Amino acid sequence: MRDNTVPVDAPGRLRGIGVDEFRLQGGFWGGLQAVNTAATLQHCLEWMEGLGWIANFDRVAQGATDGERPGWQFSDSEVYKLMEALAWEHGRTGSDWADEAFVALTERVAAAQDDDGYLNTCYGHAGQPDRYTDLSSGHELYCTGHLLQAAVARLRTAGEDKLVEVARRAADEVCRTFGADGRNGICGHPEIEVGLAELGRALGEPRYTEQARLFIERRGRGTLKPVTLLDASYFQDDVPVREADAWRGHAVRALYLAAGAVDVAVDTNDDDLLHAVERQWAHSVERRTYLTGGMGSRHQDEGFGEDWELPPDRAYCETCAGIASNMVSWRLYMATGEVKYADLMERTFYNVIAASPAEDGKAFFYANPLHQRSAAADVRPDEVNPRAEGGVRAPWFDVSCCPTNLARTLASWQAYAASVEGNQVSLLQYANGDMRIALDDGEELALRISTGYPQTGSIRIEVLEITGEQVELRLRIPHWAEGSSLVIASAAYSVEPGWATVRGPLEVGTVLELNLPVEPRFTWPDERIDAVRGCVAVERGPLVLCVESTDLPEPQTIETLRIDASQPPLAEGDGAIVQAASALAAPANSGSLPYRSTPASRERSAVTTGIRLIPYHRWAQRSSAAMRVFLPAV
Amino acid sequence: MRDNTVPVDAPGRLRGIGVDEFRLQGGFWGGLQAVNTAATLQHCLEWMEGLGWIANFDRVAQGATDGERPGWQFSDSEVYKLMEALAWEHGRTGSDWADEAFVALTERVAAAQDDDGYLNTCYGHAGQPDRYTDLSSGHELYCTGHLLQAAVARLRTAGEDKLVEVARRAADEVCRTFGADGRNGICGHPEIEVGLAELGRALGEPRYTEQARLFIERRGRGTLKPVTLLDASYFQDDVPVREADAWRGHAVRALYLAAGAVDVAVDTNDDDLLHAVERQWAHSVERRTYLTGGMGSRHQDEGFGEDWELPPDRAYCETCAGIASNMVSWRLYMATGEVKYADLMERTFYNVIAASPAEDGKAFFYANPLHQRSAAADVRPDEVNPRAEGGVRAPWFDVSCCPTNLARTLASWQAYAASVEGNQVSLLQYANGDMRIALDDGEELALRISTGYPQTGSIRIEVLEITGEQVELRLRIPHWAEGSSLVIASAAYSVEPGWATVRGPLEVGTVLELNLPVEPRFTWPDERIDAVRGCVAVERGPLVLCVESTDLPEPQTIETLRIDASQPPLAEGDGAIVQAASALAAPANSGSLPYRSTPASRERSAVTTGIRLIPYHRWAQRSSAAMRVFLPAV
Repeated sequence: MRDNTVPVDAPGRLRGIGVDEFRLQGGFWGGLQAVNTAATLQHCLEWMEGLGWIANFDRVAQGATDGERPGWQFSDSEVYKLMEALAWEHGRTGSDWADEAFVALTERVAAAQDDDGYLNTCYGHAGQPDRYTDLSSGHELYCTGHLLQAAVARLRTAGEDKLVEVARRAADEVCRTFGADGRNGICGHPEIEVGLAELGRALGEPRYTEQARLFIERRGRGTLKPVTLLDASYFQDDVPVREADAWRGHAVRALYLAAGAVDVAVDTNDDDLLHAVERQWAHSVERRTYLTGGMGSRHQDEGFGEDWELPPDRAYCETCAGIASNMVSWRLYMATGEVKYADLMERTFYNVIAASPAEDGKAFFYANPLHQRSAAADVRPDEVNPRAEGGVRAPWFDVSCCPTNLARTLASWQAYAASVEGNQVSLLQYANGDMRIALDDGEELALRISTGYPQTGSIRIEVLEITGEQVELRLRIPHWAEGSSLVIASAAYSVEPGWATVRGPLEVGTVLELNLPVEPRFTWPDERIDAVRGCVAVERGPLVLCVESTDLPEPQTIETLRIDASQPPLAEGDGAIVQAASALAAPANSGSLPYRSTPASRERSAVTTGIRLIPYHRWAQRSSAAMRVFLPAV
Repeated sequence: MRDNTVPVDAPGRLRGIGVDEFRLQGGFWGGLQAVNTAATLQHCLEWMEGLGWIANFDRVAQGATDGERPGWQFSDSEVYKLMEALAWEHGRTGSDWADEAFVALTERVAAAQDDDGYLNTCYGHAGQPDRYTDLSSGHELYCTGHLLQAAVARLRTAGEDKLVEVARRAADEVCRTFGADGRNGICGHPEIEVGLAELGRALGEPRYTEQARLFIERRGRGTLKPVTLLDASYFQDDVPVREADAWRGHAVRALYLAAGAVDVAVDTNDDDLLHAVERQWAHSVERRTYLTGGMGSRHQDEGFGEDWELPPDRAYCETCAGIASNMVSWRLYMATGEVKYADLMERTFYNVIAASPAEDGKAFFYANPLHQRSAAADVRPDEVNPRAEGGVRAPWFDVSCCPTNLARTLASWQAYAASVEGNQVSLLQYANGDMRIALDDGEELALRISTGYPQTGSIRIEVLEITGEQVELRLRIPHWAEGSSLVIASAAYSVEPGWATVRGPLEVGTVLELNLPVEPRFTWPDERIDAVRGCVAVERGPLVLCVESTDLPEPQTIETLRIDASQPPLAEGDGAIVQAASALAAPANSGSLPYRSTPASRERSAVTTGIRLIPYHRWAQRSSAAMRVFLPAV
């Protein structure tokens, strides 16, 4: 078992690949990763230095905690997420800069650790509230969870070092305080569970896994002190994890908790717990998930809505929830090998995670709505954005969880692209680059993947090196890819959505050419989704498309556009063209209620106008714009 | 000019009637008012005694403010709103109990007033934050505004008394502190404006009106200190009142502010300001108002949404926002005489305000959504409800603005039913009862109104007494009442929506019979309201109807119900029957995303099932239920 897989090796049948086993070269994800390397990591570091969030550690080390402390009570976690990103970055590229930045941060973090292992810059020191006095809102264990994840990334890419030791001491302090004989507490924001489980697995330390299990079992029993105006469901303290049927409440909390639960279930052979999360995934994906893969239907509480409550305009679809959703799906895939989990990951990667960063890697979407009624106001590049509105990529936020979460995800993206089981390598996500994978019996497989995916559906896979006769290659055929084909040595095979397994002997020089149909297609919502009744969306390969006001010819507007769904969408660039039905002339302001005694009637016009759609992930890049994914159809 | 009109006499052409000039006798509003009298007033008093909100005044009087203070910082306002209700109740009925309760509360409130007139139980005393140190969130001036409104109610129903003197001293303190030469501050929650304007008008004290004007002019200029995670639009500090085109931000704040602005505009002959509010009304009614008259599209920030953002499920439509909307429409009606304002008031009275109280007057809707996906959990009658969820009538709330707001509105409802201009009496709202109105030249008109409205559309108006030859009667014909008729002395006249004016000489014994068509009718939303595309609602007279899960025959559910809109709705009881189209069999949980490559197709079934609709205001009375107003149609 290799050490540098990300985020974890599950002890099940499948394992992930190391961050250095697949080197992206340009293309969609290679491009995003290069921007992360060149801009985002440094951007996060500068903002957190500028705002004093890193210096909070220095203040603790210096005993200077009496004054005002900048940042929210959870700002430590952003430093840890950046450290995790730097660890992956160094592991992936060997970057000296990333290593040095990581080490420098480690020194400052370590200096703030109390003698007994407790580490938090907001509690427990002079002038601060006491430790663990506000478990519901204090986020102390949440921060510790992110510290542990950062340490796991370091452990897997550089081995034991100072941060790992810091994490071990912090985890020990948590186990002492909250162990079976300790306080019956949990954290309002789950994250400690997945952090402990990952660290326990990486260090082979069952005490940490057991502590994660305890936190998970305690949840859902009214363990947390209520917070004014919040239901217990907000922090998943309403129903025990293994009894719940759906995700609910704050989406990131629900999903971090689920990720930790899968880790614990796998490491303790707890099938009941694993099945509970599988059940929650199925229910929530079917009834509480957007076409983009986005989760979180409400700005209020940043939470899941009820079944079928999926408003496109007020979709919250927090970037972090997309990342957290992929954390869960990745773990469920690793635990079960089921293709549907990798399918959802692809959707979320392209349509939530890739949508967030600006082209320059220095501004980010926090919320990812599917409908923006009016162009958002411009954001200043030097100003903290007070809140998560749609349509605004901002450089930093008052609550700034998304930039560092993106940074750690993009720095390790390639590790989600494949998995290994014995001598079978599964390709899960398609990206341009070279892969060299150590197989379980000491053999190796090196592949070169050449593709313009997702703009084209052609993916060329060449075997560069191979040892062993029994090596198999398994290719994920996305659920939308009806009519795909696989060409091997000039012979074309038709392949169905699911898996295409190449069992014939592979040898150096073998070339597989996978062709996925990426023509634009209409997609219709389930009619129980009230908020988009009568609408259709357009997808192209894994990409959800959208129309931006920027591309609308007069007199069309985002408000009045209706499309003719009898004419299929046509490919255009990396987007599509659909035909507008007759334009609705916006009536003058009548000053009366917008409800009438007769239905509006809209006809398809004889003369149609082509309307351009672009990939959703690129919206609001050219300029601030109004936008919609679901288009009212006649 | 009479003294006891409610809430104010405008110095324009029109004036309201006194609370004792129209005595309701049974019927829709008489019934609600009787429950208010018998239960709600006492209920509010008991809850506020029980929670210690009234005792907060005693603690200030006793100098015992060092300990913990129960209630939010704005809890004083609830006591004042109850006092306003008691004042109207006493003015309307002469109730000794209401008078004694009012006087007893006055003693306790007065004892808490500081020597310089400042009066607030949360600030400015030992162990409390200093006065006016948190104008954005402190609600001190908001509370004072409600104190002034209570005093106006007392002044108009009982004349000068101790509370009026308390109010005068409080208003003087506000003028000294925040006058033109004082601090350039405003309150985060508007209300002081309308309170000062009402008191200024009632006492003939232009200083108060001027102070209200100052507060209004200061607003919208970034005057308030920002609050984390809130935009300036939340408290309408983003755009000056006279420049804004639409209501935005927190709905109750926006509407209380608008009410104060109309009062100031009228009393200072500021047509520009008046037209600004008229413009905001027109825009917001056309694009930001629900079919029920409800306002507030977002739970987050309890606020207005953007144009056309009117989700039925997440509609907030706070009861207090309905009351505040009627405060604005009433003032605009009084300032302009335009019928559309009285039309909207009727809609809001029947479908927001009447929906809130339970039949026993001891539980209340806070939010009034138009779609409830699943039945809410039951509420215990002795428990404070933590938050404003749809589907739950609760006895009291953590933030409990709605019960006392309802109490003061119901105690004075009859005063909104008519207006007087010279010798013309306009009937605005139809209710069973006896009206005796003093006309401007000392003459009198007494009417007996007999009607089962809104269940029937027949309204009989008999002249009981009359002095003077020139008395005119003007009847409001609601905008939906096409095909109405008015029968006078066996002659039937067809009347159009708007006004029907009876100019012929009225004499004792004259009987008018107005017939408004209250057959059920379909109502279609403007197609720019994305959230209810493809749906139709059913109305009956002024009542919006809804379907409750309680009434659905299997296999129909609120989720899958589709109706056949080719068959008009039929009358049934006080509701209607519509025909269901084929039932959608809910597919088994597929665990995949709810988006498909083909549209769902629904046919009208040959065999139809009648589906019962009931008045929206009665929903969740029989039991907790799922519900919807807008019905997907085929």
